[in-house]
Amino acid sequence: MRAVCVIGLGLIGGSVLRAASAAGRPAWGSTKSEADADAARADGFEALEIDEALSRAAAEDALIVLATPVTAVRGVLRKIAEHAPDAWLTDVVSVKDPVDAEVRSVLPEARYAGGHPMAGLSSSGWEAGSAELFRGAAWAVTIEEDTSLEAWREAAQLALDCGAQVVPTSAAAHDSAVARISHLPHVFAAVLAAVGADGGPLSLSLAAGSFRDGTRVAGSSPELVRAMTEGNRSALLDAVDDALGRLGAARGSLASTGGLKSTVDSGYAARRSLEALATTTRTTTTVRLDGNAPERLRELGDLGGRVVALTPDTAQVELPTPS
Amino acid sequence: MRAVCVIGLGLIGGSVLRAASAAGRPAWGSTKSEADADAARADGFEALEIDEALSRAAAEDALIVLATPVTAVRGVLRKIAEHAPDAWLTDVVSVKDPVDAEVRSVLPEARYAGGHPMAGLSSSGWEAGSAELFRGAAWAVTIEEDTSLEAWREAAQLALDCGAQVVPTSAAAHDSAVARISHLPHVFAAVLAAVGADGGPLSLSLAAGSFRDGTRVAGSSPELVRAMTEGNRSALLDAVDDALGRLGAARGSLASTGGLKSTVDSGYAARRSLEALATTTRTTTTVRLDGNAPERLRELGDLGGRVVALTPDTAQVELPTPS
Repeated sequence: MRAVCVIGLGLIGGSVLRAASAAGRPAWGSTKSEADADAARADGFEALEIDEALSRAAAEDALIVLATPVTAVRGVLRKIAEHAPDAWLTDVVSVKDPVDAEVRSVLPEARYAGGHPMAGLSSSGWEAGSAELFRGAAWAVTIEEDTSLEAWREAAQLALDCGAQVVPTSAAAHDSAVARISHLPHVFAAVLAAVGADGGPLSLSLAAGSFRDGTRVAGSSPELVRAMTEGNRSALLDAVDDALGRLGAARGSLASTGGLKSTVDSGYAARRSLEALATTTRTTTTVRLDGNAPERLRELGDLGGRVVALTPDTAQVELPTPS
Repeated sequence: MRAVCVIGLGLIGGSVLRAASAAGRPAWGSTKSEADADAARADGFEALEIDEALSRAAAEDALIVLATPVTAVRGVLRKIAEHAPDAWLTDVVSVKDPVDAEVRSVLPEARYAGGHPMAGLSSSGWEAGSAELFRGAAWAVTIEEDTSLEAWREAAQLALDCGAQVVPTSAAAHDSAVARISHLPHVFAAVLAAVGADGGPLSLSLAAGSFRDGTRVAGSSPELVRAMTEGNRSALLDAVDDALGRLGAARGSLASTGGLKSTVDSGYAARRSLEALATTTRTTTTVRLDGNAPERLRELGDLGGRVVALTPDTAQVELPTPS
């Protein structure tokens, strides 16, 4: 099993290091945070200086996992260029197009496929992580026309070893999707929390389940939320515009006719679609990892397909039956 | 202990009937839904025809609890006018100004104070209820300048007997507050769900905690959500306008400077205020139930105060210490 070198040992990187180790893979990490490094060592893991960690990755032909905030990506890529320029490389950063562009610019020889596990943000740091964080979760692994199939396979295998299911997609499609289902929810939570608090202590005293649920992620670290949302600016602007359009339509309907039927019904149908995904039956398709694979895998990802197993030559994809 | 007659035996009314009975009060109900009536009887409760239920309320000088959708309120009030025109009366409808206006119009002699327990909506019907639904919850009981203190005390005592804490407020302040912390969250959940679903199966496949939490109440019964939100049209329009303003400002900031600092920071501070309420220390104040009580109780409600006990002459109010 290929060794794993994780750069950044916060909630996500720390959980990858634990999960890869638990899957039996040789694994070590590095972090700028002395607190996270000490905590990782106290839990029995190897946290090395970054030069040492990357030299060892080159020596052992390891898969390097970039798990820093997006703002630190360029600096780490320069370090990798110094120690392991043709490394196997993936990342777990929440936005994919900007990371892809940095990798192409700084590390053109890297065997790279981007990744993004869809796991929580509301706590942070090594201590908040666990080997089980990714169990059953979706984990996007990007595949462009020129992505090396071997690099994609390496990144996807890591996700499977961590207990996740792989969603194959392009960087652009990923960024557009997560703007809608992760970044816009953070903006909505912040706006909702502020509008509620504007109502003063009486409003917060009366707040119950709907407000608690709708504002939960507003309690996440502001730095991480800003890095994530601001890092996906263009796709997030599209999602915010869609939301402004729908909210403005609700406003207009309520003001003119007094009714919210269209808003409420479309929200209900959408939520039902989400809930149906958890219980729907699934069919399994096998995709050969040949020259047609990138397009075929992205098509299946677009339909909600997830890779659940890999062989050297094939990917097994589970597809939800349309509702 | 004063008897309780509950009209409407869905989630909220059915839970009031159970909780009042569990507190040792004589209690019976009535509902138009044969399914709810049969289910209540099967659980050992009395579900009568509405004429019989109200005649008995008049004979026993019971507190009548209106627990129907807002659209059915006027019809039930007419029935009460027929059988028990000077009844002790409260309600558990999610909007207060419109119910107050109907009561003043149809039942000017009623000894009425409005009520609203802040408990969930995501399931409905008798079977979804429980005697414990209101345990620790906020329960608004409205007190205007001309509200009878005895009527307010009766409604507030019912809330306490059901395990809730009483938030004293005016109908107008209540409607404005719940527009922000209950009705806007339902509109936001619907809009967010629809924007997510617009991203297709890929978006829903990648959806994780933030989207699930932010859209949870979009799965509530569309009829109940529409009755609740459309019934609070004017206050909800104000809340939606505040939200449009804040969301538009976020859009402008993201488009021009690329930053979301103001949005994220204000949302974080607001969510922290909400979380602090659960753990803050509280001081206790005693309010005499005399002519100054309505204004004093509303002031304390505005500060986040909750009535936790009543004597014939006083209300004990717990106040959060300012953070």
